[in-house]
Amino acid sequence: MTTPSEPITLAEYLGHRLRQAGVDHLFGVPGDFNLTLLDLVTTVPGLEWVGSPNELGAGYAADAYARRRGLAALVTTYGVGELSCLNAVAGSAAEDVPVVHIAGSPATGAVAARRPLHHTLADGVFDRFEKAFAEVTVHQETVTAEHATEQVDAVLLAALTHRRPAYLSIPQDLAGLPVDPAPLRKPLRAAPDEAAVGEFAHELSRLMDGAGRPVLVVGHLVSRFGLAGQVLSAARAANIPLVTTLAAKGAIDASEPLHRGDYAGTMVDASTAGLVDGADLVIELGTVVSDVLSGFFTHRPAGIRTVRIGATSATVGPDGTGSTHPVLFTDAVRVLEDHCQKYRFADQPTADPVPPRHPEFGDDAITQESLWRTAGSWLPSGTAVLADTGTAFWGAVSMTLPDDTVFVGQPVWNSIGYALPATLGQGLADPGRRPVLFIGDGAAQMTIQELSTIARHGLNPVIVLIDNAGYTIERALQSPKAGYNDIAAWDWAGLASSMIGAGRLEASTVRTTDELRTALDAAPADRIVLVHAVLDMFDAPTLLRKLAERNSGSAR
Amino acid sequence: MTTPSEPITLAEYLGHRLRQAGVDHLFGVPGDFNLTLLDLVTTVPGLEWVGSPNELGAGYAADAYARRRGLAALVTTYGVGELSCLNAVAGSAAEDVPVVHIAGSPATGAVAARRPLHHTLADGVFDRFEKAFAEVTVHQETVTAEHATEQVDAVLLAALTHRRPAYLSIPQDLAGLPVDPAPLRKPLRAAPDEAAVGEFAHELSRLMDGAGRPVLVVGHLVSRFGLAGQVLSAARAANIPLVTTLAAKGAIDASEPLHRGDYAGTMVDASTAGLVDGADLVIELGTVVSDVLSGFFTHRPAGIRTVRIGATSATVGPDGTGSTHPVLFTDAVRVLEDHCQKYRFADQPTADPVPPRHPEFGDDAITQESLWRTAGSWLPSGTAVLADTGTAFWGAVSMTLPDDTVFVGQPVWNSIGYALPATLGQGLADPGRRPVLFIGDGAAQMTIQELSTIARHGLNPVIVLIDNAGYTIERALQSPKAGYNDIAAWDWAGLASSMIGAGRLEASTVRTTDELRTALDAAPADRIVLVHAVLDMFDAPTLLRKLAERNSGSAR
Repeated sequence: MTTPSEPITLAEYLGHRLRQAGVDHLFGVPGDFNLTLLDLVTTVPGLEWVGSPNELGAGYAADAYARRRGLAALVTTYGVGELSCLNAVAGSAAEDVPVVHIAGSPATGAVAARRPLHHTLADGVFDRFEKAFAEVTVHQETVTAEHATEQVDAVLLAALTHRRPAYLSIPQDLAGLPVDPAPLRKPLRAAPDEAAVGEFAHELSRLMDGAGRPVLVVGHLVSRFGLAGQVLSAARAANIPLVTTLAAKGAIDASEPLHRGDYAGTMVDASTAGLVDGADLVIELGTVVSDVLSGFFTHRPAGIRTVRIGATSATVGPDGTGSTHPVLFTDAVRVLEDHCQKYRFADQPTADPVPPRHPEFGDDAITQESLWRTAGSWLPSGTAVLADTGTAFWGAVSMTLPDDTVFVGQPVWNSIGYALPATLGQGLADPGRRPVLFIGDGAAQMTIQELSTIARHGLNPVIVLIDNAGYTIERALQSPKAGYNDIAAWDWAGLASSMIGAGRLEASTVRTTDELRTALDAAPADRIVLVHAVLDMFDAPTLLRKLAERNSGSAR
Repeated sequence: MTTPSEPITLAEYLGHRLRQAGVDHLFGVPGDFNLTLLDLVTTVPGLEWVGSPNELGAGYAADAYARRRGLAALVTTYGVGELSCLNAVAGSAAEDVPVVHIAGSPATGAVAARRPLHHTLADGVFDRFEKAFAEVTVHQETVTAEHATEQVDAVLLAALTHRRPAYLSIPQDLAGLPVDPAPLRKPLRAAPDEAAVGEFAHELSRLMDGAGRPVLVVGHLVSRFGLAGQVLSAARAANIPLVTTLAAKGAIDASEPLHRGDYAGTMVDASTAGLVDGADLVIELGTVVSDVLSGFFTHRPAGIRTVRIGATSATVGPDGTGSTHPVLFTDAVRVLEDHCQKYRFADQPTADPVPPRHPEFGDDAITQESLWRTAGSWLPSGTAVLADTGTAFWGAVSMTLPDDTVFVGQPVWNSIGYALPATLGQGLADPGRRPVLFIGDGAAQMTIQELSTIARHGLNPVIVLIDNAGYTIERALQSPKAGYNDIAAWDWAGLASSMIGAGRLEASTVRTTDELRTALDAAPADRIVLVHAVLDMFDAPTLLRKLAERNSGSAR
């Protein structure tokens, strides 16, 4: 990439900044207040527009893209556009995903005159929607002519530093504002607080010196910052076992000897729970403690020997009384990696080896048990697995993934319908990896139109659509026979064909394990493969049943 | 309806209050935090659950239902559910539509303990989403055990009084709270300020005494409060001509001799603009001055002889210096009706009669001109016309509607995709009236899944899908050839058939005026009729071209 030397427009400035951060695609939907922005930003070489049928889909796609690329841009129009993706942006906040939401907004003159425009409440008030976004974004700016490039930089830097969504509003008359491109020569990076880094290093040494059975808990920020390799190399140097939270599933290969499996308190895996409970130093790397991820608060209570590394600070010692240091995640991981070169801990017991999951064969009806066993044994290496909230997620996390598998879920926010548009974002971010989507029928009905965008951009995912006639996660949680959990039956193959064309689609409906296995084995590489799997409406994965048991205690 | 005498649950209390307000259907999507609420509220006799594939569709459906019934209820779950319909609720605010948004929220104990639950940002903060809704709703309550029924009543009363959306959050453990049903015996109604009504009556007399050429401008609150009959009777008594804003189109029959047509400043109709400009007293009944509705601020500037009646206040005299009286809309209209019995103004000139629009025949390709001419001449009396934002709205408002036609559009908020789910809400609210939906392909892609709900509930709309390969309203506004205005081509008939079943569908693709007319004439009454009309991508209705010209001046 070259940096322009002549004045450029503000939209181009933004485009160059996005390119510097690894963004090649812009997600969103056009609308009258963002048209000038779109006309100009798409002139920046290497930036491709990815228009979605609606904003929610675009927002979910951007989220998955940002997970892989380290940043994504989501462009909507004022009011009617931006509010439709607030759920997606809130999800990015909950899941620590750096999506820059860029709203094209009314012209500065109209705002100053408090004109009652369309896409407003016609009362001359223009900051309502920015305020709504302020609830879920780490930084907000409405661009002014005086400080335009500084404001753009502030928004992007906040998103990058916190791995959180941020909000940028560009008035339609300012998209074409001529600006000085000079700041582009300086990369956007937060300056480390060297004194804090030093103190953190000192504290970490102190704890590691006293430890005999340390454990690393890998959380989702390791993936968000793209630091799984560094973390693994630290673990290997000092011989520290790792466990991964469900939010970081796939970050460490299953074949890695130091990797002891998935950790969610006592809910998922007794051996990882035992390992963490028995440790005398727990180093948590970018973890989130939520009800679901902690196995409903059965995770190891923060003891004296705990180090928790977050996006912009690290805490050493117990929650509330530990010392907190304002160090950035990348700096903290670097310190950890450096330290680990100086230690070599004794071997800790390994878990019993997980028996390989053999496929089942037979003409029995597919069950959740046979579905995940079959899918898990089929899943080739080098894919990206996307698992929607519900039976899909709780089944998919039970699979031992082949090495080199990306796993995308939404275990903090848990918004159904996320994973279908996420397939678009993941596929565009990481074109060498075939997406494999597992999604329930109720979830797919939320955001089905994004299948059209997936096809339009040449992606060929395998989609396993779990048809259990409605919201089985809710049937598992409460009132299994309630009519509100039933949804309309769709002809999924017909629907997909109508959206993407019969020539782009390989579709099958499978009801037995044999049929499922055959459909997966026969999946052609050059088409979108839809495996419509029909399951009993009350069947749920084992983990979801465990979750439901624990959840029932929290509804007070 | 009977009022229970034994303690009932809070959810049932809410259900009874909704039934009292004319609500027979609940729109929304289930989610774990609202399941207890749904289990209980649906036990109230006469309340039917209408589950939608996603919350945005449910929100739009509720909006259209509230326009007809005077109130609607929209039930979603915390965070992931509610945020997905914020755009719809904001639209209800912009368009003065009383939708009560009811979110099922986390249990009081979990909130008090600041537990990092799923569907939150896992930081123990629980009021983010209510704050976002506070930007667009007139009243918000999160229910407490101590004041539960008062809070429910306050939310409903605010929505009914202001004809605005309001927000009610019901923690999952309080849905089943036993409450005293006694307050149900007292209907929800705001008490009028009798002194203010008297003062307003006096001021109105003073202005009417001095007037010779009064005009009534009918705005959308007349429809929202269901007072078109009263307004017309007032006009007839005193011989005052009426004009309707585009937001109130259909409120007064076209055949009514005193009705002089549609008014949007100088943009739509020169004769209504002339009538209003020449009046010596303009009585605006529930109008909204927005850029679009005022013909880009070419409406008559508020002069000394203006009365503006809003939902909760009326202003007599010029904006800024007129006297404002806190009178409720229904009371103000009652005062107007009483006064009009005492006056009889001289006849004012009538407009030239609008020539009847004859259908065109021929094998020429359909144009926007021939589409609306043909549709307008076909349209039977007794339907509900729903016109989505874009070419559909600007074409549909050009039609002279047959008497007894309901017209639903969204001219203030202008969110594309609204009208398809609105067809569900209108159809359920007003089952004797066949819905006729006009919608562009780009808009239909936003919310297409709601077609499934329309079929599931037995509605049989006629859907004219205007296929112009993308966002033609934006092509008309700016950058006609920009690629971002192009959308993926769908097989619309195949898609509809896959969602609703071939047996429920009568589909045709029409390219000539003859084909269009034939398809409309042959529309069977007992099926969903999809008329897929293929038009040139750059063709736009005349009014949209006028709008684009005027709009280009506002982008500063």
